[in-house]
Amino acid sequence: MTKQTGKTGSNLRIDGQALWVDLMETARFGGTPKGGIKRLTLTDEDRQVRDWFVKTCESLGCTVSYDSMGNLFARRPGQDDSLPPVTMGSHLDTQPTGGKYDGILGVLGGLSVLRALHRSGYTTRHPIELINWTNEEGARFTPPMMCSGVFAGIFTEQDVLDKRDRAGIRFGDELERIGYRGSEPCGRHPVTAYFELHIEQGPILEAEEKTIGIVEGVQGMRWYEVTVRGKDAHAGSTPMPMRHDALVASAKMIEALSQIAFAHAPTAVGTVGLIENRPNSNNVVPGETFFTVDIRDPNDTVVLDMETGFKKIFADIAETCGVTLDIVQIWDAPAVHFDPACIGMVAEAASEAGYSARHMVSGPGHDAAYLASVAPTAMIFVPCKDGLSHNEEESILEADAEAGASVLLRAVLKADAGFSKDS
Amino acid sequence: MTKQTGKTGSNLRIDGQALWVDLMETARFGGTPKGGIKRLTLTDEDRQVRDWFVKTCESLGCTVSYDSMGNLFARRPGQDDSLPPVTMGSHLDTQPTGGKYDGILGVLGGLSVLRALHRSGYTTRHPIELINWTNEEGARFTPPMMCSGVFAGIFTEQDVLDKRDRAGIRFGDELERIGYRGSEPCGRHPVTAYFELHIEQGPILEAEEKTIGIVEGVQGMRWYEVTVRGKDAHAGSTPMPMRHDALVASAKMIEALSQIAFAHAPTAVGTVGLIENRPNSNNVVPGETFFTVDIRDPNDTVVLDMETGFKKIFADIAETCGVTLDIVQIWDAPAVHFDPACIGMVAEAASEAGYSARHMVSGPGHDAAYLASVAPTAMIFVPCKDGLSHNEEESILEADAEAGASVLLRAVLKADAGFSKDS
Repeated sequence: MTKQTGKTGSNLRIDGQALWVDLMETARFGGTPKGGIKRLTLTDEDRQVRDWFVKTCESLGCTVSYDSMGNLFARRPGQDDSLPPVTMGSHLDTQPTGGKYDGILGVLGGLSVLRALHRSGYTTRHPIELINWTNEEGARFTPPMMCSGVFAGIFTEQDVLDKRDRAGIRFGDELERIGYRGSEPCGRHPVTAYFELHIEQGPILEAEEKTIGIVEGVQGMRWYEVTVRGKDAHAGSTPMPMRHDALVASAKMIEALSQIAFAHAPTAVGTVGLIENRPNSNNVVPGETFFTVDIRDPNDTVVLDMETGFKKIFADIAETCGVTLDIVQIWDAPAVHFDPACIGMVAEAASEAGYSARHMVSGPGHDAAYLASVAPTAMIFVPCKDGLSHNEEESILEADAEAGASVLLRAVLKADAGFSKDS
Repeated sequence: MTKQTGKTGSNLRIDGQALWVDLMETARFGGTPKGGIKRLTLTDEDRQVRDWFVKTCESLGCTVSYDSMGNLFARRPGQDDSLPPVTMGSHLDTQPTGGKYDGILGVLGGLSVLRALHRSGYTTRHPIELINWTNEEGARFTPPMMCSGVFAGIFTEQDVLDKRDRAGIRFGDELERIGYRGSEPCGRHPVTAYFELHIEQGPILEAEEKTIGIVEGVQGMRWYEVTVRGKDAHAGSTPMPMRHDALVASAKMIEALSQIAFAHAPTAVGTVGLIENRPNSNNVVPGETFFTVDIRDPNDTVVLDMETGFKKIFADIAETCGVTLDIVQIWDAPAVHFDPACIGMVAEAASEAGYSARHMVSGPGHDAAYLASVAPTAMIFVPCKDGLSHNEEESILEADAEAGASVLLRAVLKADAGFSKDS
């Protein structure tokens, strides 16, 4: 790395070893025997990691506050504290059988940025804030990205406070119980820029041997529930031409959806992830099949085109097979396009630091997708082994964690300088 | 019907109304609110219907005995009681949500034959026996056709006595408890001929508007369990060409199996009745799929040919889709061919009685399939509504019940005459 000086502060360095120690140390809170983490939102384990976060950020000269949704803000003062902060963030909660990096890398990577600033004594123009968003995973309380959603005005505070988990326990009560319900109303908090470091949760960077993903946005996504109804019949005594086999019809549809996604190469994906078959007995011709459809592309027009395509083909298959078809759209998340200036800062940061990089679009949703509607936003991806995520075997390289945090540091400093000029 | 006299006794007539009353009356034992029957083997309901059976047969001049497996034999003396009996039978047990006719029609149809003989005072040359086989359904204790299987030497008595239901209750203990464990060893019982009247459990007779199915045998059948293993992956972040989607591969296989069965028209059938998908989450590319394969044809060579065909195509699909394939055969029931003389007697009986009829092969297994290995055997089918069976909505016409019993009566008398000459 070339040593630089000047107001961009690019002589600052991430302590990769300290970042890795933080990752391993916090993995104790909810750590599983298989090396993953079970740290569901607003549990005792969530409180433990929050306590650790507050204490550690304070030791780096930050003040920590939390808003009415329990979103944590570790603030490091700037030269002009009247300016809205340049922010970084992600989430410390996990899936029930989650890994050590999904979300956590973004928070602890941000912490390593604060550490670099603290150690050097460098003072940014804007205040810098590191944010831990409450309940990104949506595993205990649905939907996911709940409290960045409130922050961005997507959900109301009261709706979220009244959400209940499967045991009937209320979100608001648990937030009070663990001591992280703050007085500042969620969302009354202007932001100069937001950067989120995250593992890719996909196989592309690893396959292409790239270190940094310059994330330009989040794919548009639609979800559907499909019910195919035929007629139960005895597998031994019902001649083939007299069948109304819901599963054979569904099989043709599943194959067709895959072909439609391939036909919209290179970025489109189409998935049937869940299927239920009734009565599901080995000697009964299936009378009813239920399955989900998930289609995504960075371009909403392509998503719409895939929808039109699969609906037409599914209807044709249903007619040919003598079954009925019911398709219900259950989710529509339009594509998110991150801020060109922020994307450019991430790209420059990766290039200046000498990391191999590629532009890409996120498949999964992230808190950044909601933040993009209220502040200039971009994301930074690093590779994860086999693209595996939401899994206790989730794994990344220590060098890639450091690389991601280094790009985050540089991007934050560029935003501090770049957006200062404009504001 | 032409009135006839003479030793074939074809002037005897089935009392269709009495048969229907018997069907409705016994349907009380285990009757369900939806009009079906839940009468699992060796339960109190099974005892109740057995008690009714014993009492009713005795009122028609029969003596009733039961063997060591609880198979019931209602015997009407013939002119020469040293001859092995001409027999009829089926089963009074049902599925957990069974109908009023599957099995029951064969027993009560046989009872209506005994009633016709009793009322006319006609004496056959052979003794006539009506048999209620224990546990045809296999719903409480597996496998099905358990005690006709012991009778035919397929299973050992001790193995069956030691079978346990899901609650851990032993077959032998339950048989003792309901009072139907007899002293006669099961199977030491020569038989001149065996006829079984049954509902078709398929749609062919109804579709072709035929009253009688002349059943020539039971299809050959093989069952397999197929496991397809790919790789779990995020549905949003895994490009189509990088997927190893177990469900897409399975979908192609399910469609291929259907095509193979169609290609072996007109009698072959191939069914995937059960499928389980893992992890079965709508935003995860499926990593593992498990499904069953059921292939049948009256000709074992065709069954083998289908097996060879689907194994080859499944392997090709697995290779194309980048998944592994594991196929395990779990059941092999070779085709059963009934006795040509008995089949001919059923055909003549239907023709002489003026019923429309067609030759056919049974898809499901029946007690007759095991009896065929120890005695000349044939079956008689009557239509059931929509081919529906193993269902509380199982339904037949009163006229078809009478028709089936009338053909059974004529066939029994033909066997009494025909086999007498030979023996």
